[in-house]
Amino acid sequence: MKRAHLRILAPLGRAGGPPFRPAVTVQKRVASSQSWRNGNAPLRNFVPVATLAAFAIVTTTSCFYRKDIQAEALAEEAPRKIRMSEVRKHSRRSDTRWVVRDAKVYDITDWIPNHPGGEVILRAVGGVIDQYWDIFSIHKKQEVYDILEQYYIGDVDPRDLVDGHVPQDDVEDPFEEDPPRDKSLKVHSAKPCNAETPVDALDKFITPSEKFYVRNHLWAPRLDEKSHRFTVELPDGEEKEYSLEDLKKFRQVDVTTTLQCSGNRRKHMTEGSRYANGLQWGIGAMSTAQFTGVRLQDVLADAGFHAEDAENDDVKHVQFQGAEAYGSSIPIDKALSRHGDVLLVHKMNGKPLGQDHGFPLRVLVPGHVAARSVKWLKRITLSEEESQSQWQQRDYKCFGPNQSGADVDWSTAPAIQETPVQSAIVSLKDLPKGDRLRQVYGLEEDAIEVKGYAFAGGGREIVRVDVSPDDGRSWTQAELLPDNAVGSKRWAWTQWRLVLPRRLAGRSFVVKAVDEGYNIQPEYYDPHYNFRGNLTSGWHRVPYTNRDYF
Amino acid sequence: MKRAHLRILAPLGRAGGPPFRPAVTVQKRVASSQSWRNGNAPLRNFVPVATLAAFAIVTTTSCFYRKDIQAEALAEEAPRKIRMSEVRKHSRRSDTRWVVRDAKVYDITDWIPNHPGGEVILRAVGGVIDQYWDIFSIHKKQEVYDILEQYYIGDVDPRDLVDGHVPQDDVEDPFEEDPPRDKSLKVHSAKPCNAETPVDALDKFITPSEKFYVRNHLWAPRLDEKSHRFTVELPDGEEKEYSLEDLKKFRQVDVTTTLQCSGNRRKHMTEGSRYANGLQWGIGAMSTAQFTGVRLQDVLADAGFHAEDAENDDVKHVQFQGAEAYGSSIPIDKALSRHGDVLLVHKMNGKPLGQDHGFPLRVLVPGHVAARSVKWLKRITLSEEESQSQWQQRDYKCFGPNQSGADVDWSTAPAIQETPVQSAIVSLKDLPKGDRLRQVYGLEEDAIEVKGYAFAGGGREIVRVDVSPDDGRSWTQAELLPDNAVGSKRWAWTQWRLVLPRRLAGRSFVVKAVDEGYNIQPEYYDPHYNFRGNLTSGWHRVPYTNRDYF
Repeated sequence: MKRAHLRILAPLGRAGGPPFRPAVTVQKRVASSQSWRNGNAPLRNFVPVATLAAFAIVTTTSCFYRKDIQAEALAEEAPRKIRMSEVRKHSRRSDTRWVVRDAKVYDITDWIPNHPGGEVILRAVGGVIDQYWDIFSIHKKQEVYDILEQYYIGDVDPRDLVDGHVPQDDVEDPFEEDPPRDKSLKVHSAKPCNAETPVDALDKFITPSEKFYVRNHLWAPRLDEKSHRFTVELPDGEEKEYSLEDLKKFRQVDVTTTLQCSGNRRKHMTEGSRYANGLQWGIGAMSTAQFTGVRLQDVLADAGFHAEDAENDDVKHVQFQGAEAYGSSIPIDKALSRHGDVLLVHKMNGKPLGQDHGFPLRVLVPGHVAARSVKWLKRITLSEEESQSQWQQRDYKCFGPNQSGADVDWSTAPAIQETPVQSAIVSLKDLPKGDRLRQVYGLEEDAIEVKGYAFAGGGREIVRVDVSPDDGRSWTQAELLPDNAVGSKRWAWTQWRLVLPRRLAGRSFVVKAVDEGYNIQPEYYDPHYNFRGNLTSGWHRVPYTNRDYF
Repeated sequence: MKRAHLRILAPLGRAGGPPFRPAVTVQKRVASSQSWRNGNAPLRNFVPVATLAAFAIVTTTSCFYRKDIQAEALAEEAPRKIRMSEVRKHSRRSDTRWVVRDAKVYDITDWIPNHPGGEVILRAVGGVIDQYWDIFSIHKKQEVYDILEQYYIGDVDPRDLVDGHVPQDDVEDPFEEDPPRDKSLKVHSAKPCNAETPVDALDKFITPSEKFYVRNHLWAPRLDEKSHRFTVELPDGEEKEYSLEDLKKFRQVDVTTTLQCSGNRRKHMTEGSRYANGLQWGIGAMSTAQFTGVRLQDVLADAGFHAEDAENDDVKHVQFQGAEAYGSSIPIDKALSRHGDVLLVHKMNGKPLGQDHGFPLRVLVPGHVAARSVKWLKRITLSEEESQSQWQQRDYKCFGPNQSGADVDWSTAPAIQETPVQSAIVSLKDLPKGDRLRQVYGLEEDAIEVKGYAFAGGGREIVRVDVSPDDGRSWTQAELLPDNAVGSKRWAWTQWRLVLPRRLAGRSFVVKAVDEGYNIQPEYYDPHYNFRGNLTSGWHRVPYTNRDYF
């Protein structure tokens, strides 16, 4: 009964539409689609219209996603068999757009305008969607399966299946345009690419661009510098478009910035407390470069939005959208701050951005978690609200040590922006007799050189680095190494070094840093555990005797 | 020989000058003054001038403080006996100004313009200086004794001494104009007054003004609102003077601000690690008020210094001087920040400032350690350098847990400005059956209400407060209570509350807070110990069974 009225709700057939589209309620997806495919479609077209209209009112909420369902779709009994060659014709270049999921074919043409994730869905049309849902795992829930099922038009022809699946050769790889990467990067996931800076590059103040850690949420779009445009959407809805060429008229600014993934050192939280969800990054989800670009506030002013406007306006956030679908936002105050140094950057270490780092244009939000420095910038929106993307609303948040994913209300926790004080040991080295450093430190006896980085969000300078050679029993202050960082505040990490007599070495070396707000790092991981493993900053301990640690 | 040339360096007698002033080298203070008083003054005026001129060049560095020494001063042999009634005539209202130290009389008229501490020295003239040196302990060193000794003119007449000292009745009390104080304040030192807010006022969002903690470095000047003036000194040396009346023309701004002494909770560091120098404050060296005043940047602009000037100028700091001699400074960026809310305030909780809180005008630097919010404002100086006061250069700094006062170089540590995340439990209460809160929390069983404050410097909001009823084994998130704080950022503490079943209570309750930069508090005190006991922020632990804790 419930299914019957849905057929009546469907408008008359649309010319050029798919030949077959069964009507199913969202509550009964699997069973009903099975029964349709088995030819057991019940109750066809003979229930009086008036009765069905009443049902329609009752059940509207359960099918509100549904734009139209064609009456003609009910004409056939058996599911249509569709060749993959036919599916491929219904790509983004076609008026009608199909996708394959689990060897079934769906015409999602009418759904596309309503897709909460926007146009990125066009990446998948004309082919298999499963691998995109592996990336956008938000789709893996009943609610989404139900929506898709409404657009079912047939099954993939068995001649195109191997073991019941479309073979890999016929599945488009969303990552096929990803660039080649430096072999020294420590890869945590290949697709999307997430790879950390090798330890031997972490003791350089500037990270060579090819060794800069890669943190991609999706694929790395291959964009064309000449044709690329990004749009600024003003509070009144007016839009202004800019090319890379257009940005040349603004003052070019250099800023030395450390970017750190919120998951940096997550591995240490897992090891020091209990498993924290996500990639098990070591100390290398963090790198530093000199970036060149233009001030976001200059571009906004050019587009018609001035700092003074913000005082009275309802604009509270600046949202950024990347070409691959990633989205994020920052508070308007950071964007407009005279010393916030938020840039749209096109160069990294004096050369155009690499493809993995947002070529041709990315946002740079110094002092904030790297997740806000959106790559492959496509759109800037001045808004009263934060980005509604999952990455703003769910991924980058922290909860208490007692809370788990099952019981938190994500909306109660603010999105991570500035990050806490952090430090790590990146090398422990015995200094040979006659080493210059032993002379500098006046050590005749056997000595150890300890090196590392220290960093704090919010532009807060590192004022002290304490190093312990004996598990935290005794401490010595490390030498903070000079560098050529530029910027309105201290956006870059501080490299540090300490040379100690070897006889002081205990079981492990430990580091903790202090920033100019006198914030400190926690000693243990348990009390600061959060199930997403964000912002791990417990004291970094490196066993002296384990030479394979790094 | 060395002494002889000093006499020659002295110009001829100044009319109205003191009748006797011996010449001594700074290296030989005690011995030489003794010998002069014993009438054994050697080598008088018969060394040829040419020879003495040569000596003068050699020894200039050891007597550069000395402006003039009068030749006539050498005329007498025995020390002059001076009555205290005579001393009192040489007060700030006299052309010649004397002080008494340790029953000896000094004419410091010529020294006053060179006094590094400025005019505050005028408080002491015409009386005994010892009690001022007890406050300004920086004077208690050989170098200063040596300078003073050059101005010796005689001894206090024995008729005015009791047991060799000027009796207390004849010693001016620097604190005699201090105001009466609320009896509920927990006094740590009476002179100068340092007293903390009683615990029963710490669970109110706004601290009643009379219970606002008092942290005076010196006395509390009693100033006149009508005649009070403060001066703004511009980078080019130009000065502009303002009355309180003048400030009425600027926009009046309200800001709710928590002020916290850097020594708040020092007692916990002493108890949790080892003795930390200074007053042993509990959790009450911290209070919150609604302040009203004018923006410092508006006054600076009126005086001729604009925010844009700071970009190119060499101005790096804004120094503040109080009427009692206290001095301090903040970075220019904070002073000019659009959302920094640095004010010159004349009201606290809607009424004129109390005398202990800077009447008629104090600086308010929200988000920074309270030591920067200079009271009884007399002078604002735009400068390339920080305040050179001991309070800026030495008192408010932090060092590593291994460092002691004996081995630190104060100049290597930055002056504390922003403060780290902090929290405390201010009450633990059994909720009686039928209590409204037990109903709100849905607890039929016996319950405990825990309340407290949480705060972070830099305008960083508190995003989470974790409370443990069992020494840190398990945690629950406290309810963050709403309030009516106003200001560009979060400058006020957050009051929090949690109601728990009593059966969960272990040995002690613990609190730790997290700010929006995801900074956290250290679990223990040892690793963050600093010998000055500044910025204590280890987890606050309150024994459940000790009802006398607060």
